[in-house]
Amino acid sequence: MPDTRWDRLWTDVHLATMTDPSLGIVRDGAIATSGDRIAWLGKAAALPAAPEQLAAEVIPCGGAWLTPGFIDCHTHIVFGGDRTGDFRRRLRGESYAGIARAGGGIMSTVRATREASNEELTAPAAARARELSAWGVTTIEVKSGYGLDFDTELRMLEVAAGLAHHGPADISPTLLAAHTVPPEYAGRRDDYVRLVVDEIIPAALDQGHARAIDVFCEDIAFTPGESRAILEAGIAAGLHGRLHADQLTDQGGGALAAAVGARSADHLEYLSRGGVHAMAEADVCAVLLPGAAYTLGADRRPPVGTLRRAGVTMALATDANPGSSPITNVGMILNLACILFGLTPEEALLGFTASAAKVLGLEHDRGRLEPGKRADLALWRVGDLAELCYWMGPSPLKALVSDGLPVGL
Amino acid sequence: MPDTRWDRLWTDVHLATMTDPSLGIVRDGAIATSGDRIAWLGKAAALPAAPEQLAAEVIPCGGAWLTPGFIDCHTHIVFGGDRTGDFRRRLRGESYAGIARAGGGIMSTVRATREASNEELTAPAAARARELSAWGVTTIEVKSGYGLDFDTELRMLEVAAGLAHHGPADISPTLLAAHTVPPEYAGRRDDYVRLVVDEIIPAALDQGHARAIDVFCEDIAFTPGESRAILEAGIAAGLHGRLHADQLTDQGGGALAAAVGARSADHLEYLSRGGVHAMAEADVCAVLLPGAAYTLGADRRPPVGTLRRAGVTMALATDANPGSSPITNVGMILNLACILFGLTPEEALLGFTASAAKVLGLEHDRGRLEPGKRADLALWRVGDLAELCYWMGPSPLKALVSDGLPVGL
Repeated sequence: MPDTRWDRLWTDVHLATMTDPSLGIVRDGAIATSGDRIAWLGKAAALPAAPEQLAAEVIPCGGAWLTPGFIDCHTHIVFGGDRTGDFRRRLRGESYAGIARAGGGIMSTVRATREASNEELTAPAAARARELSAWGVTTIEVKSGYGLDFDTELRMLEVAAGLAHHGPADISPTLLAAHTVPPEYAGRRDDYVRLVVDEIIPAALDQGHARAIDVFCEDIAFTPGESRAILEAGIAAGLHGRLHADQLTDQGGGALAAAVGARSADHLEYLSRGGVHAMAEADVCAVLLPGAAYTLGADRRPPVGTLRRAGVTMALATDANPGSSPITNVGMILNLACILFGLTPEEALLGFTASAAKVLGLEHDRGRLEPGKRADLALWRVGDLAELCYWMGPSPLKALVSDGLPVGL
Repeated sequence: MPDTRWDRLWTDVHLATMTDPSLGIVRDGAIATSGDRIAWLGKAAALPAAPEQLAAEVIPCGGAWLTPGFIDCHTHIVFGGDRTGDFRRRLRGESYAGIARAGGGIMSTVRATREASNEELTAPAAARARELSAWGVTTIEVKSGYGLDFDTELRMLEVAAGLAHHGPADISPTLLAAHTVPPEYAGRRDDYVRLVVDEIIPAALDQGHARAIDVFCEDIAFTPGESRAILEAGIAAGLHGRLHADQLTDQGGGALAAAVGARSADHLEYLSRGGVHAMAEADVCAVLLPGAAYTLGADRRPPVGTLRRAGVTMALATDANPGSSPITNVGMILNLACILFGLTPEEALLGFTASAAKVLGLEHDRGRLEPGKRADLALWRVGDLAELCYWMGPSPLKALVSDGLPVGL
């Protein structure tokens, strides 16, 4: 018998604890929470007394499946403006350059983001966060990167952190001031790198919202040398390192992430074999983003087989953003990961739970069902969890618990 | 002033009437229904009196967009069993033959369908139909084809027709007894073709549910000669002709559909230039099914540019089925059509409305907003209809009217 009664006890439920590559299944299980923590879990038959004696509230689940709340470890859901017009123009055959000249492209998002008030940024971002939570997401990483100036980058982090008050999900903000070189710094890129390193990173630390530093290392963004300087400054200051790496060309991004001790390298369509092994050795996670590969019509896939054999942790995320992955439907991302990238449903589901927690440096706290872990639980109306990756219909989420509290759906 | 008051009048709404290639837009419009028909539509400023004087019920729409109810003109939503296990096995690298030996594949669906009662078939199919209607669908074509024997094919048509009583959508059943040659007829294919022509088609006509005859013309299914015999028999008996054509190989399916006077040829990844022109000349519609091309990892795309230049009507459908297109999310199909097949958002939206109506022989009755047409209306929570094709989140359907009646969402 527990010393005190649990707050809640879910019974008649199958658990996917995410504690092993087969999802750590406990059939005919039960799980209890006290406050914001998981208090107990196991076979229902192992409960030390009748459920009603054990918990203040008993919730029979009708044989549904329960997983940890999902963790979306790579998003750009805070942005101003709208890119629907770009989408239409692209499908009419206009070039990226033509779209940019017509006022579209990433710089249109930067302009709109700079012009928007915090309130104007918050409302649509909160709606996007709720769309994710309707698919079981209880933790969302949110990047800055559409400000590209001191004030707007810090405002984006503030807006991101504030989303926690507008929905059930916990928010993990990431500073991505090095998303692209802003046009004001054309011809003096070094000045922008210095602005990021000398001013924006220290100010973000003072502000206290950012948990990670991220850079887009690509021939259209930052060089490996510039990326290293920014990552090293952020990591030295105590932030987790992330890197948009080897998405469009092989920049040695995977090896760079390993060299600086980053938590993850993300995208990785052009990751080399050497990059895989450097990541494996340094225990850098691979964050796979099939929504972007699909939306951009990428002709390459990340080297999933090589990553798997090398034992690299593979996480999965929506990359939700207005240009290259306008997707908050987690089911579609799971499906794309299986269909386009060849992940198994088990790898895809681990990618949104245990593996994503590791990317965010939260593996001690969430991403698995274990006593002491944060009580973030998603209950699913499916007979087999692989259905989440397979049947593309409405979200089969039946109930959501975030930080110990049931969420209204 | 109308002679009698309209039943309902939607105001403060933008209309996409689907009457021209630019969607026949009427901004700042209004639309009225009487009984099950559209009674009036036009600019709000052209209303002959104050809204309250004109209609029993006035519905202000807050500047939302209104389209005809969507028409899903190619589905297989009636089936027994579950193929989630196949999906998992395929992603573990098992071959189709291996999966079939393990009891999976299309024959597992046929076995499960034969074994299921009408009630057991109806409940999950009705759920799938409602998933489509949550995306604005008010007309669903539903194929038989998992019975492959006299009794089960007729039962499937009965179950399909009965779905109209379980949800808001009107149902258009199609006889697809020639989906594949059943194993009982291995070595005597002609006998199965004769069974279809001499017994199943006449019985389906007596039964009265089927509106169309369909055949899977492919080297793994029916030859062009067999397909022609079955199509001709069905068309001669008054059914609309449909053809699963040129999906996996060039079988001359487009030309065959044209030669027999079919309404549509569907899939068309391997359609030849000659096939396109035969279809254009005979006014055969192309039904594009990007869900299947995507799920199967097809290496070819239908010749959309050639179809467009030849003036072939291009419809779009989910192909919802348990094996090759487990998708009832219409937004995902619209997005796949744009991203994978290069349709414009306008073509995609016409593909689910006016063009789909033509495929089903219902162009006189629905698919466009015009006075006298069936009052099937979908109201969307978007600022631009292209958002339906672009942002992959929850369904932005705000309200649905089927046959003049508002549907609870």
